[in-house]
Amino acid sequence: MPSPADIALMHRLADAAGEVIRPYFRAKIDVIDKGAAKAEMFDPVTAADKGGEVAIRALLEAERPEDGILGEEFPAKPSSNGRTWVIDPVDGTRAFITGQTQWGTLIALNENGYPTLGVMDQPVTRERFMGTKDGAELHSPAGVTKLAVRPCESLSKAVLMTTHPWAYFDDAEQTAFRQLSNATMMSRFGGDCYAYGLLAMGFVDVIVEASLKAWDIQALIPIVEGAGGVITDWKGGPCAEGGRVVASGDKRVHEEALRYLAG
Amino acid sequence: MPSPADIALMHRLADAAGEVIRPYFRAKIDVIDKGAAKAEMFDPVTAADKGGEVAIRALLEAERPEDGILGEEFPAKPSSNGRTWVIDPVDGTRAFITGQTQWGTLIALNENGYPTLGVMDQPVTRERFMGTKDGAELHSPAGVTKLAVRPCESLSKAVLMTTHPWAYFDDAEQTAFRQLSNATMMSRFGGDCYAYGLLAMGFVDVIVEASLKAWDIQALIPIVEGAGGVITDWKGGPCAEGGRVVASGDKRVHEEALRYLAG
Repeated sequence: MPSPADIALMHRLADAAGEVIRPYFRAKIDVIDKGAAKAEMFDPVTAADKGGEVAIRALLEAERPEDGILGEEFPAKPSSNGRTWVIDPVDGTRAFITGQTQWGTLIALNENGYPTLGVMDQPVTRERFMGTKDGAELHSPAGVTKLAVRPCESLSKAVLMTTHPWAYFDDAEQTAFRQLSNATMMSRFGGDCYAYGLLAMGFVDVIVEASLKAWDIQALIPIVEGAGGVITDWKGGPCAEGGRVVASGDKRVHEEALRYLAG
Repeated sequence: MPSPADIALMHRLADAAGEVIRPYFRAKIDVIDKGAAKAEMFDPVTAADKGGEVAIRALLEAERPEDGILGEEFPAKPSSNGRTWVIDPVDGTRAFITGQTQWGTLIALNENGYPTLGVMDQPVTRERFMGTKDGAELHSPAGVTKLAVRPCESLSKAVLMTTHPWAYFDDAEQTAFRQLSNATMMSRFGGDCYAYGLLAMGFVDVIVEASLKAWDIQALIPIVEGAGGVITDWKGGPCAEGGRVVASGDKRVHEEALRYLAG
């Protein structure tokens, strides 16, 4: 179980990453050092990703030297106590580089193999979704609100989201996704990690993704579960290691969705 | 040519619509008057759309009684002077109802058949894109910045956006869109009217849509053209009446895109 100190530290980690990342958003890609023999490209999203991870790692090294760190940008640091921080400073590269705000900073505290505390922070809109198995909250300039999924009795009344209906799915996954999509009320794309926040707020009923890494999903599991939702792999099993993921606000929709995806 | 008074009025129209619409965003759909024989559904996006158009029409009736009005929600008012205000208070219904901010309030001033002034206002993020043929600006809490598309030498380096790759396209349109998409560097969905703002800011290179109405596109034409971009129908002709639309930041990309779409 995450302690109050873990939760306080999580806020500091998200704050620190946001300070580094925010100035890179909507910065222009440019070729720097034009006089050099080999021109070097300034790529804002790579700079933001690396800078954000450096900031998070520095705080963790100071505050939690025993804990492990698993991040996208640098080699993993093994844990000596069963606790590991799993981080993706800028999840949603395509959103970031097109100037959209569906990207976020993902940080999970994994205890003995399971993410027990997760944050999805959007540094530009200053919305911070945080969850544990006991509950989930949205922290924003408007205040703190409790997150709760909405009921949805069947797939035929559900709003479905995914980030891209073909870029992250292989042919068989695309076919399954399209059949599932045809059974819903409505589909909507371009969600990235922010889609899980919309599900936790009760505006989206089901999210389907594939090709995820552990750091793409661990932070989102406690947010979805804390808001009362369900999140598994396409066969209904655990999804903390990534791969194919389906999240639903209502168990009835989840069970129906699995019938399309598990085959 | 829009006068300074037209531009000042346009700001007042967008302000008035935003005040009405903003409170409905992320409001929950609910059944009201549960005791009545026939339960009535409170639908936030319909309420926002109608309320926004009422606010805009009231201001126009007071300030410009001779001008025509063409809007989605109420019957058209004919113009007696060649000027018509073309309005869609909430363009991007799917974005609105899923709690995303890619929707916007669209208002165009059409003079003798051509939109000469356009606004795309996002009342929640408080970003307002405004354009004439002479230039386009983004007004936001951070200040006013000039909008300019970015150069892109070929489709193979372009970022493509559309709102949904199949919901708004018929089979032939889907095929053409998919072939075009395969020729780009990257595609991204869920754009709605905000995508044209991203193009005008220089983060997106080409947008392809179909099934548009006049009020879905007229406000966006001066923004795209004012920022230096090109916007036509799929055959390279005028698009102010809606239908199939393609917008590009760079003429070279536009010409390449038309080859996929005009066939």
